[in-house]
Amino acid sequence: MRRWWRTAATLSLGAGLGASAGRLWTHTPGVEHHRDGGLLEQVPVVPVPSVHAAELTVSPGSSGALMKYGFPSLSHVRTRESYVSSYDPRTRTPSWVIERLSGTSLSGSADRKFCDFKEDDSLHVYHRATNADYKGSGLDRGHMAAAANHKWSQKAMEDTFYLSNVVPQNPHLNQKAWNNLEKLCRSLTKRYANVYVCSGPLYLPRQEADGKLYVRYQVLGRNHVAVPTHFFKVLILEQAQGEGVELRSYVLPNEPVDEKIPLERFLVPIETIERASGLLFVPNIMKRSGSLHAITSK
Amino acid sequence: MRRWWRTAATLSLGAGLGASAGRLWTHTPGVEHHRDGGLLEQVPVVPVPSVHAAELTVSPGSSGALMKYGFPSLSHVRTRESYVSSYDPRTRTPSWVIERLSGTSLSGSADRKFCDFKEDDSLHVYHRATNADYKGSGLDRGHMAAAANHKWSQKAMEDTFYLSNVVPQNPHLNQKAWNNLEKLCRSLTKRYANVYVCSGPLYLPRQEADGKLYVRYQVLGRNHVAVPTHFFKVLILEQAQGEGVELRSYVLPNEPVDEKIPLERFLVPIETIERASGLLFVPNIMKRSGSLHAITSK
Repeated sequence: MRRWWRTAATLSLGAGLGASAGRLWTHTPGVEHHRDGGLLEQVPVVPVPSVHAAELTVSPGSSGALMKYGFPSLSHVRTRESYVSSYDPRTRTPSWVIERLSGTSLSGSADRKFCDFKEDDSLHVYHRATNADYKGSGLDRGHMAAAANHKWSQKAMEDTFYLSNVVPQNPHLNQKAWNNLEKLCRSLTKRYANVYVCSGPLYLPRQEADGKLYVRYQVLGRNHVAVPTHFFKVLILEQAQGEGVELRSYVLPNEPVDEKIPLERFLVPIETIERASGLLFVPNIMKRSGSLHAITSK
Repeated sequence: MRRWWRTAATLSLGAGLGASAGRLWTHTPGVEHHRDGGLLEQVPVVPVPSVHAAELTVSPGSSGALMKYGFPSLSHVRTRESYVSSYDPRTRTPSWVIERLSGTSLSGSADRKFCDFKEDDSLHVYHRATNADYKGSGLDRGHMAAAANHKWSQKAMEDTFYLSNVVPQNPHLNQKAWNNLEKLCRSLTKRYANVYVCSGPLYLPRQEADGKLYVRYQVLGRNHVAVPTHFFKVLILEQAQGEGVELRSYVLPNEPVDEKIPLERFLVPIETIERASGLLFVPNIMKRSGSLHAITSK
């Protein structure tokens, strides 16, 4: 099971560390010179101890608590109209984004032609991805919370266009297999009472010629937006009341994936994603559900 | 200034995503089958909204608040006898570790011959580094909070031996230039009222043959402990009451560094570390100090 990420020589290290002139900041109360407002001042960072899953309700309606099954991690958590996410300020992408899909959220008149990708100005400018970073990269701005999942509200759809909900994605993957996986998530709303979808990037090591394992990924633009090697999607599927929860967890490589390959071939044990991502899903789900059936093959 | 990390081809991606048999977890109250206790249950994760800098006092004595200048980030924060740290469960290393040095903390009879490197069992087993991961790697278990900074208490010194305070480090660097930098920090306690030291790993991109920037780093052992490309050390130096704060920020590559090179050559603008690490220092310091003088060259 561990072998699948061992498919790819010496550490080559930076040099020439520069030293530049000293800088002096003087503090005027209420004013920060030479600096932006500061992340910790601007955003409701990690309001976790006071936020329990059941309290974080989201639209549409009052039908459910998006974070019912807990937070996979607790870093830079923020809530939007259509999703809850955790941001990684080092990679300039989300760590994970979770949505709850239902027939209600999928229907409506919201239109993506009125949406534009936009910087998330709740993040410090040092750690924020911009449209310029993606330009000319040949990579798509890949939604984690999908726009088409949130037709119920123009604002909810627009929120999916924050670049803090976006990860550099191979265009073929984004438009074909990943899009099909998003469609599959939407179709499951017909069979399950609730469909929770958690998506995010992975940085998986490969074995190189020297026999050692290395993580290697490109970074884009002035802000060094990380291009992940893979993506995960964890589906938490609620059956009718009291009938337990089904878990499906997928990993797709950030490269063209032949649409003829059935998506079931990309199912992996949830442990694989939990180990690789640094996130935890099952312990939180187990607190909420009497039984959990993890689907890792068809 | 940005050029110094642009010194090193196509994304090569994993394949053969496996699918294994489905798994069934059944929930018995208070018992989690097939799983460890769960990170969120075991540790006081991110107690931040209720913890203000001034409340987090540390030994020795009641002489100061370790987190006076705020938290660089708010992920998996925990306090030990000798330091406060934030852990990155994806890289299996700390993101940052902060200590406060003084004449008092440096003197005492604690002895590292009674200390052993140990797993941090407050972390989920999936995300925890072990001694076995380092074995045979040719790399040292490099302390972030240095053992020799905490001679005042055997327990405080022992706490620096948690592998959650440790990052894989080139042995030559660890034993020579990095050690000299640690000694410099200790010597500064003679000139400054308080010496705060924040240390951590960096993963800096390099330009490869295709002209694009890539981050590349080895991972060690079964748990894929990340080997950073560089390390940072940020020194927050308090002068006598009311005379402001001096900031010195260093970046050293994770490779042998000739001891003859003066450490001042590794001074960098704090912005460099803030951008690369995803952390913020200056906004927090500015809240506490009337003036800040950033030393980036001698």
